[in-house]
Amino acid sequence: MKKHLLTAALFIAFLLTATAVMAGQTKYVFFFLGDGMASSQIQATEAYLTTIHGGSATLAEDLLKPENRLNMSKMPVAGMQTTYDAHALMTDSASSATAFACGIKTLSGVIGMDENKTKSYKSIAQLAHESGKKVGIITSVSLDHATPAAYYASVSNRNNMNDIATQLANTGYEFFGGGGFVSPEGPARDGDTSNNIWALLSANGYEVRNTRNAILDLKENPRDKVVCINPVLPDSSAMPYDIDRINHYPSNLSLAEMTETAIANLYNKKGKGFFIMVEGGKIDWACHANDAMATIGDMLDFDNAVGAALAFYEDHPKDTLIVVTGDHETGGMSIGHATTAYKAYYDKLLAQNSSFQYFSDNQWAAHKTEWEENTCPNVSSANNLASNSEMLDLMMDVFGLDYDTLNDYQKEKLEDAYDKSLCGTNDNTDAENMLLYGYYNPIVVTITHILNEQASVGWTSYSHTGVPVPIFAQGKGKIAQLFSGFYDNTDIAKKMADAMNLPDLPVEK
Amino acid sequence: MKKHLLTAALFIAFLLTATAVMAGQTKYVFFFLGDGMASSQIQATEAYLTTIHGGSATLAEDLLKPENRLNMSKMPVAGMQTTYDAHALMTDSASSATAFACGIKTLSGVIGMDENKTKSYKSIAQLAHESGKKVGIITSVSLDHATPAAYYASVSNRNNMNDIATQLANTGYEFFGGGGFVSPEGPARDGDTSNNIWALLSANGYEVRNTRNAILDLKENPRDKVVCINPVLPDSSAMPYDIDRINHYPSNLSLAEMTETAIANLYNKKGKGFFIMVEGGKIDWACHANDAMATIGDMLDFDNAVGAALAFYEDHPKDTLIVVTGDHETGGMSIGHATTAYKAYYDKLLAQNSSFQYFSDNQWAAHKTEWEENTCPNVSSANNLASNSEMLDLMMDVFGLDYDTLNDYQKEKLEDAYDKSLCGTNDNTDAENMLLYGYYNPIVVTITHILNEQASVGWTSYSHTGVPVPIFAQGKGKIAQLFSGFYDNTDIAKKMADAMNLPDLPVEK
Repeated sequence: MKKHLLTAALFIAFLLTATAVMAGQTKYVFFFLGDGMASSQIQATEAYLTTIHGGSATLAEDLLKPENRLNMSKMPVAGMQTTYDAHALMTDSASSATAFACGIKTLSGVIGMDENKTKSYKSIAQLAHESGKKVGIITSVSLDHATPAAYYASVSNRNNMNDIATQLANTGYEFFGGGGFVSPEGPARDGDTSNNIWALLSANGYEVRNTRNAILDLKENPRDKVVCINPVLPDSSAMPYDIDRINHYPSNLSLAEMTETAIANLYNKKGKGFFIMVEGGKIDWACHANDAMATIGDMLDFDNAVGAALAFYEDHPKDTLIVVTGDHETGGMSIGHATTAYKAYYDKLLAQNSSFQYFSDNQWAAHKTEWEENTCPNVSSANNLASNSEMLDLMMDVFGLDYDTLNDYQKEKLEDAYDKSLCGTNDNTDAENMLLYGYYNPIVVTITHILNEQASVGWTSYSHTGVPVPIFAQGKGKIAQLFSGFYDNTDIAKKMADAMNLPDLPVEK
Repeated sequence: MKKHLLTAALFIAFLLTATAVMAGQTKYVFFFLGDGMASSQIQATEAYLTTIHGGSATLAEDLLKPENRLNMSKMPVAGMQTTYDAHALMTDSASSATAFACGIKTLSGVIGMDENKTKSYKSIAQLAHESGKKVGIITSVSLDHATPAAYYASVSNRNNMNDIATQLANTGYEFFGGGGFVSPEGPARDGDTSNNIWALLSANGYEVRNTRNAILDLKENPRDKVVCINPVLPDSSAMPYDIDRINHYPSNLSLAEMTETAIANLYNKKGKGFFIMVEGGKIDWACHANDAMATIGDMLDFDNAVGAALAFYEDHPKDTLIVVTGDHETGGMSIGHATTAYKAYYDKLLAQNSSFQYFSDNQWAAHKTEWEENTCPNVSSANNLASNSEMLDLMMDVFGLDYDTLNDYQKEKLEDAYDKSLCGTNDNTDAENMLLYGYYNPIVVTITHILNEQASVGWTSYSHTGVPVPIFAQGKGKIAQLFSGFYDNTDIAKKMADAMNLPDLPVEK
């Protein structure tokens, strides 16, 4: 009988151990958030990878090669999430980030608060920090933007960016990295006098680094509390699109390099580990603008950042969890277009060397200055784009778009857009202009529309859409399996909290 | 020591049992295939359900209510699959069905054969049948169409439909149901004389039933070998769109009713169970035509068929596996549109009472006959649609589309399409016509485009697209977990074979 009791006791001990592993503290936890990233963005990037690696995006045997797959889509666990917020089928990034960070539904535009804007909630980052983990918050957009903000701030309006930055500076989190601040010197919260974030950071013991070498030096010489801001921030205090970093701003760090730096800086073998949130924030911006190559560029950088976490996982497989998802789809991107039907031509995208934004701010701005005075008085004459060799050369040089290969309808669209961008007029109705251009530079968005449709990539919107979004997970034993299935975005926060053995969400401040 | 040996032996026995359960024979297996169904089709249907149930498709608390979720998206296991075939990013339904049925990549248009069209492969249905299971094949399109064909035929060209039907009649499978045959009397295979499928079915012991009552009677009085064909097959020997069945063809069975009938007919408590494949084939056709409501109607019927399997599961939870997926997305459908941005108005869809196809074949055809002689000579005069009260009434009565609420650009598009449909001309370029209408009736596809974009549903293509597709599974113990993760469509066949303890795929004939 004693032997049987021993066997039973051992069995119970085994069960208890297994349960502890399930709900236990995971030491190193990564949450990767591709803003605007859903299934189409992933498939377009893999089709592009296949093409640039010398394969064909129309051959299954090439598309399935491991080197043509993203790190995320090779992770062992997959799930899907519904993304709507309290009052919108198409969530915004503030409410979705609040769902991931705090486990609650709220209104578009609200961060870390309920939909009545009266209660504030702790994020999983704050709870992880309170439990003894080091915390890193990384984004390719500004550090006070909606997605990163949800991990450290509670505000009724995402535009209160000085307020958000103030809360950042008061967190005590160990690492912030990526873009800068939109309102580092005000307007301040509650109508107070201007609140200088740089002074506050310094007073709170943060060191701010903003050169490539100074940031990379953290890998060898970690600091307790550091804010790492890329030297070149061309729009809205955000990192440049990765296609532009590669071609125009080599002194900047990629999102992947920033992630590697954060890992090295935060690694603590004897401590309680870390929680790192990494946002690929400009995937969304590129999709808003319907620019497939800018999207793919930032998808690749984001996925390389996932790769940095996977490299860490290889060294710490029993202690690490990596979760990757998007907050919503942006742009109604599709892997097919009416004009190409069952064919795909991703080679059409290979020559684009700048984002829509870089082109608009640089080559286009120069061209407009040079040409508008002469061209606009003749805007009603036919074919002023077709006869403008400088503009045709620009389209070829920057986007690889060969005007001579276009059909009449595409040429007509470009002509209308060129007139609109150069001189402010065309003969479209207002509704047609809104459909064709949204709030974007007409000639630039028309170029990317036509280039993208040639490749077989379509777009239906300049906004977020409501399609469910995939999730990928890899990590410690059965913990990653928590992320299998089809569930709501608020469940992700709860699963993350479970994986880190944090209190049940939501937790009021 | 003996006690220890006993404990070890028991532990080994436990492990062996567990392994057997993992890879063991699942008695009742369902495979549901939504042709053209991916994440957008699912989300659009759930937003519609929420609206028609009196909730708002912009409120998370309504969207998340169980009654507003599809059966499939409430299943416990979710995964994703890549859909490309041997030589296309956008697969066709023949090659994708071959992937699911035989576990191999092949060319678009090829069924049950390799890409060289030299080797033929057994399907999981044939292998299940050989293992002693009864087999049912159900589809809302014709029984000799590509998706059902892959479960019983090998042909180098999906258009060889008499050949396919001949192979159907020679399977010995116990149940076929849904649509009819496209070529029941030839042309025959290999240039032989015409091969009468009805005679062959009869010679092979099949009973053919084609009235509602005769088919439903099988629930009480099952037959060994039966072919159930709906009485009304309005296009290509397929069942009508479900929106048309409900409103125009009540004598027909829904896909859900056909599935319930198959389950009752094939149920065998003492035998080795069954394998049932159910295709929602006209989700795809509705998406090709960019008709959201026809899509949603067939999605609901398909999901109700899944519900029939779930009801069976409730009674046989230890013996049942249900897998639901799509073969590819169709139409580049998105849950958002440039003209509606962050807003959704699914109430705009509630009044549509016929599919594009029914409208085109009936109300439109009558209108065209009546009006074309008088209208076409005046096609160049302005506003002939705007002043045609009969057509405006038709748009309101059939689609709920209120002309007076449209913007100038939408009115211009309708006018162009009306002229093109009625008289064959407008002043668009050929490329613009192809983009706007594909190969569809211009006025009909323009009506659904505008109605759909009012609701916030966009389309980019009239063809299949290459976006990864979700999978859902529920069933017997850990078997359903086989379908978790992100993998290739060929892996689904292998997992299905594993669940049924069939030989490793592929298996040559």
